[in-house]
Amino acid sequence: MARQLFELVGTDDRRFSPYCWRTRMALAHKRLEAARVPVRFTEKELIAFSGGATVPVLVDGPNTVRDSWAIACYLEETYPTAHSLFGGPEGRALARFFNLWTDSVLQPSVFQAIVGDLFALVVDPADKEYFRKTREARLGRTIEEAHALRPEKLAAFKAALAPLRQLLAEQPFVCGAKPGYADYIVFGTFQWARMVSACPLLEGEDAVLAWRARMLDLYGGLGRGVAAFDTAA
Amino acid sequence: MARQLFELVGTDDRRFSPYCWRTRMALAHKRLEAARVPVRFTEKELIAFSGGATVPVLVDGPNTVRDSWAIACYLEETYPTAHSLFGGPEGRALARFFNLWTDSVLQPSVFQAIVGDLFALVVDPADKEYFRKTREARLGRTIEEAHALRPEKLAAFKAALAPLRQLLAEQPFVCGAKPGYADYIVFGTFQWARMVSACPLLEGEDAVLAWRARMLDLYGGLGRGVAAFDTAA
Repeated sequence: MARQLFELVGTDDRRFSPYCWRTRMALAHKRLEAARVPVRFTEKELIAFSGGATVPVLVDGPNTVRDSWAIACYLEETYPTAHSLFGGPEGRALARFFNLWTDSVLQPSVFQAIVGDLFALVVDPADKEYFRKTREARLGRTIEEAHALRPEKLAAFKAALAPLRQLLAEQPFVCGAKPGYADYIVFGTFQWARMVSACPLLEGEDAVLAWRARMLDLYGGLGRGVAAFDTAA
Repeated sequence: MARQLFELVGTDDRRFSPYCWRTRMALAHKRLEAARVPVRFTEKELIAFSGGATVPVLVDGPNTVRDSWAIACYLEETYPTAHSLFGGPEGRALARFFNLWTDSVLQPSVFQAIVGDLFALVVDPADKEYFRKTREARLGRTIEEAHALRPEKLAAFKAALAPLRQLLAEQPFVCGAKPGYADYIVFGTFQWARMVSACPLLEGEDAVLAWRARMLDLYGGLGRGVAAFDTAA
């Protein structure tokens, strides 16, 4: 196949990266197939051809694109006649804001809440030393210290979701009546969390949980059909 | 004139409401004129016909619309051939997220940072008792206590701007190459602040400040051409 998606892999072939899930959902949105190539954290040599050291990397015929946002823009420009990811320049500009908000506000709090489980359950034994060294440097604390902060990090995450919760009480998807790339951005965070930890991010009546269930149903249950530790969805 | 915008007024005819500025900019974006009708905080009887107790209220021929978001949607639907505020359904859906984020994250921190100045400098003497009673109930503290929290509220505001700052380092406007309604949402917050307080919200090199200057230049300097306490822009 001429199209390949290089994505992060952990134990038992788990493909849990939130950024790779953005791309998987974007490809499904565009009805595009891709062969999925697993890459462990320390197998940087497999993606060195991309010019970077992180996944996702998309190879599409002669084109190589790295970074989930760049891939989404590439797909929209290269396959404009298929279902739109952004709905136009304004939608793309605001999806970029949504991407930056998710990365800077939501991801860090969830990461600290689940990193202990991620490390214990999903990081491949061959990657554990690398993971601990790089992530503890980023966190400024040990994985065990971060794990102990779970309650306050989950509380911060729930509070930060307030505007998204209000939005999803008004409309079925972030992008309105139909899902679009902004939905996939934040879905990646939720899908990653349920694939690496049994800890539920949200409980009870919550418009965000109802939205997550709708997202898991998309594209023949693409998100639902994977091994997850949090099976409440 | 068949079109009227009812907007908040303080001392010296200052029209400072952040929500009314959203509507003023949206009208200018659509190249629509409106007679501006001043309403003090305690002149609720002037807008009772709208069914609500807050401005902005837009009267457009036979139609009355209240609430800045509803007015933006009304303008887009009623005058679709003029310059678009949203760029389509996806842009509108994400602008709604941006609205909820601004209202729940940015506005409250700025309000606490500037409420002391707002009360002292801009609230009409006839409205002061009403303003103190309602705002202190909302804040859960006195205006003077809120004023004393300015440094930490400004710090929280600057931190919360991180994704917007990153966005505006990449593109000239929130909505991309051209301003749109999401720009006016957050511009309202900045314009309100400079009209009621000499305290600068931001200083130094900041992509958000550069964007604010571009916003003040729009529509013949509509935002720039008002009496402001913070004249650094």
